[in-house]
Amino acid sequence: MRRRKKPGAKEKLLNHELHLCKEPEKYKGNWKEYFLEKRPIHVELGTGRGQFITTLAAQNPEINFIGIEIKEEILLKAVEKAVTQGLRNVTFLWYDVNKLNEVFADGELSRIYINFCDPWPKTRMAKRRLTHRNFIERYKKFLREQGEIHFKTDNEKLFEFSLNEFAACDLQLKHITFDLHHSDMKDNVTTEYEDKFSSMGMKIYRCEAAKRN
Amino acid sequence: MRRRKKPGAKEKLLNHELHLCKEPEKYKGNWKEYFLEKRPIHVELGTGRGQFITTLAAQNPEINFIGIEIKEEILLKAVEKAVTQGLRNVTFLWYDVNKLNEVFADGELSRIYINFCDPWPKTRMAKRRLTHRNFIERYKKFLREQGEIHFKTDNEKLFEFSLNEFAACDLQLKHITFDLHHSDMKDNVTTEYEDKFSSMGMKIYRCEAAKRN
Ligand SMILES: C[S@@+](CC[C@H](N)C(=O)[O-])C[C@H]1O[C@@H](n2cnc3c(N)ncnc32)[C@H](O)[C@@H]1O
Ligand SMILES: C[S@@+](CC[C@H](N)C(=O)[O-])C[C@H]1O[C@@H](n2cnc3c(N)ncnc32)[C@H](O)[C@@H]1O
Repeated sequence: MRRRKKPGAKEKLLNHELHLCKEPEKYKGNWKEYFLEKRPIHVELGTGRGQFITTLAAQNPEINFIGIEIKEEILLKAVEKAVTQGLRNVTFLWYDVNKLNEVFADGELSRIYINFCDPWPKTRMAKRRLTHRNFIERYKKFLREQGEIHFKTDNEKLFEFSLNEFAACDLQLKHITFDLHHSDMKDNVTTEYEDKFSSMGMKIYRCEAAKRN
Repeated sequence: MRRRKKPGAKEKLLNHELHLCKEPEKYKGNWKEYFLEKRPIHVELGTGRGQFITTLAAQNPEINFIGIEIKEEILLKAVEKAVTQGLRNVTFLWYDVNKLNEVFADGELSRIYINFCDPWPKTRMAKRRLTHRNFIERYKKFLREQGEIHFKTDNEKLFEFSLNEFAACDLQLKHITFDLHHSDMKDNVTTEYEDKFSSMGMKIYRCEAAKRN
């Protein structure tokens, strides 16, 4: 099924002053200033329709959240969720994860979430996976010491690949689970893809990977 | 099916001067002297009938191997394999892995293999798993710097558990695979249990965990 681009998504998106940061490069090294209050910053990459990040933002007023998504018609859904809920501790970037070094400085982030990123199953496409070591090395720079990457996927092969990449980048793996919805993790916040896959009976894989001191 | 203890297994086992080390405590800190030539020492825990370790010993004359097994009638099979093949770089201990600190000194081992150890599925039995962190912390002491633990199992839950334990003990994970027999690992040497499980169509999980500098 092809997704049709809704006419006007871009214009609608750009109307959202409060929840869309239009010139994110300006805030590189200064994200703490962007928000009303200086707080730890958690970023979600490939945020999709925003169920995950808006739920987290509502539950965790002591954290500031940034969602990054490349497709404007999808991002619009996320922005609208934040608007509807009146959330002041979350903003979104219409941006490409490949260019994160233009918007984040070293040590600026406390956590990065990667949820159900595209698996790129072909080996020759491995470098496009958001958990490829080339990406992880960049994420590591943006993270403060002991900052964490939290990763979820339905794709077993991608999970196996990602564990090896996290370990190869010398991150400290934690809370590895092969079946999140039957694990002892409490308070899991689901994403749109997660709801879809788990309702189809598929297992959800998850792990955390922390930057060492 | 109950395994019946063969009468005389113990006596037969103790007859094997060359391939059974009867007073292993004597060699604590001196295993290099035990063998004809001083070479790195690789140990297998719960060695079973010895297919794995005898194959490795035949393929790797530059390594000395020690297989450890608690059940005498099973160990006898392993010893007999070594005798038949005339292997001089492998010996066996009729010993309990719980008491390893009586036979190995710090930094004495280069590698430890754990293959298809009992999964002890009940949580209250977790401490008996040979990959519980209490065991791993002891293995770590016996290993030299950058020494490795190589682990295989058919049991997904045990594998998930073990990855977390290795990571929690600050070992460097490598070569994590969820389906060894369909992975790109070459030269895999199988164990008896591995042959049995994989012939039943079950997946084999494997990883390596290295001691940091
Ligand atoms: C499979 S979806 C998952 C969406 C959401 N995280 C979830 O779990 O429901 C992957 C999302 O990542 C976005 N994406 C893929 N590559 C990206 C990139 N380089 N930069 C930003 N977003 C990207 C896609 O547009 C898509 O919305
Ligand atoms: C499931 S079998 C696997 C045997 C072999 N590694 C294989 O893969 O074919 C586990 C073996 O570990 C041995 N074992 C269990 N606990 C042990 C302990 N504490 N010390 C030594 N051996 C033990 C058992 O007797 C058994 O032979």
